[in-house]
Amino acid sequence: MVRQNIKVAVDAVVFGYKDKALNVLLIKRNIDPFKDSWALPGGLVLENESLEQAVVRELKEETNVTIDYLEQLYSFGDPDRDPRNRVVSVTYFALVKPEHHAIKADTDAQDVAWFDVTELPDLAFDHIQILETAKKRLQNKLTYEPVGFDLLADKFLFSDLEKLYMTILQKVIDRRNFRKKILSFGILEELDEKISEGRGRPANLFKFNKKQYFKLKEEGFLFDIK
Amino acid sequence: MVRQNIKVAVDAVVFGYKDKALNVLLIKRNIDPFKDSWALPGGLVLENESLEQAVVRELKEETNVTIDYLEQLYSFGDPDRDPRNRVVSVTYFALVKPEHHAIKADTDAQDVAWFDVTELPDLAFDHIQILETAKKRLQNKLTYEPVGFDLLADKFLFSDLEKLYMTILQKVIDRRNFRKKILSFGILEELDEKISEGRGRPANLFKFNKKQYFKLKEEGFLFDIK
Repeated sequence: MVRQNIKVAVDAVVFGYKDKALNVLLIKRNIDPFKDSWALPGGLVLENESLEQAVVRELKEETNVTIDYLEQLYSFGDPDRDPRNRVVSVTYFALVKPEHHAIKADTDAQDVAWFDVTELPDLAFDHIQILETAKKRLQNKLTYEPVGFDLLADKFLFSDLEKLYMTILQKVIDRRNFRKKILSFGILEELDEKISEGRGRPANLFKFNKKQYFKLKEEGFLFDIK
Repeated sequence: MVRQNIKVAVDAVVFGYKDKALNVLLIKRNIDPFKDSWALPGGLVLENESLEQAVVRELKEETNVTIDYLEQLYSFGDPDRDPRNRVVSVTYFALVKPEHHAIKADTDAQDVAWFDVTELPDLAFDHIQILETAKKRLQNKLTYEPVGFDLLADKFLFSDLEKLYMTILQKVIDRRNFRKKILSFGILEELDEKISEGRGRPANLFKFNKKQYFKLKEEGFLFDIK
């Protein structure tokens, strides 16, 4: 075979909805290059593990977060994306509920934290480009898959769902139209329970109708938000 | 860095519409493993080229087909997908008009040919899995992008477009509904020119309205075919 000295890595973009904003899970590197920079969790693939096993392992090692299923995002392979050596990174992404995961840095990470995607520090390597690609994928997903279930708490205000969609799409949506459309899919259940936030009137909590939700997710649906 | 002996390859799934059927471009290998088997064009990435440059080069070398832009499909990395060595393949796909490309085998290919995707030979490595992934991507694309332009001849019968969609979706579509929907996008122009096929009455030729086509492609549109 052709002589080739390229390494293969995996990196993970893990999104969570936290403090009413779209967040991403980052680690602070404790090794060179980019020591002390924030970066996506990830690392080199071991000889005998699959790419999926590698990304699950790296995520667990560096952040203590266990995710069984990550979706493949894109492979990044510019010859000089890593100053040490040529490294092709196969990237993955996942949506989680931060409150279900206790984070803790270890191995190559000296720290781990959730960052609001609109207030990011400088990132190592080409990780900002990977993150932008993941954000676009997530925006796309919203049009054909009901995404909220994986991100919101079990019970949530309708305004949380609105805010989530606006945050991901990075635009203001027509609230009345959005409400009408999303309710028409039958995936939301309005509960009797109410909570009040700030000075507003108490508002009803909602939860997802799991059965209908997974049916829609399976079948695919088209949801165009103008 | 961790010791790692994984190679990186690229493979290309090139679809074309030929003889009223969805075809894929395959090469016949002249090297081991899988010598004399049909396979997707592709090969190892050279040290200093990008992944995109690698797939364009391999395609040109093995099939004589020049494609400037291929879309990344998925990366396949099962530890034992190649009997020689561990190889991660970053795969790409493209849609072309076969009549615009003269094919000719060279380098690792002893032959090259278009195959109807419903009448495939046994394929080398996990290439059948890669091809299935590409077919699913293409099916998906049909719902949000007008795909025909890249595949059909410049002038075509409406029945060609119908057949193309049915071939890709692998199902019978409601012809009247399909016609109504596709015409509503304003991307087709009916020409005065007629041709007759078989025993049928002469039918009008169509062409794409390029401007409107690229506008829709740019903006994205939702086209749900039941």
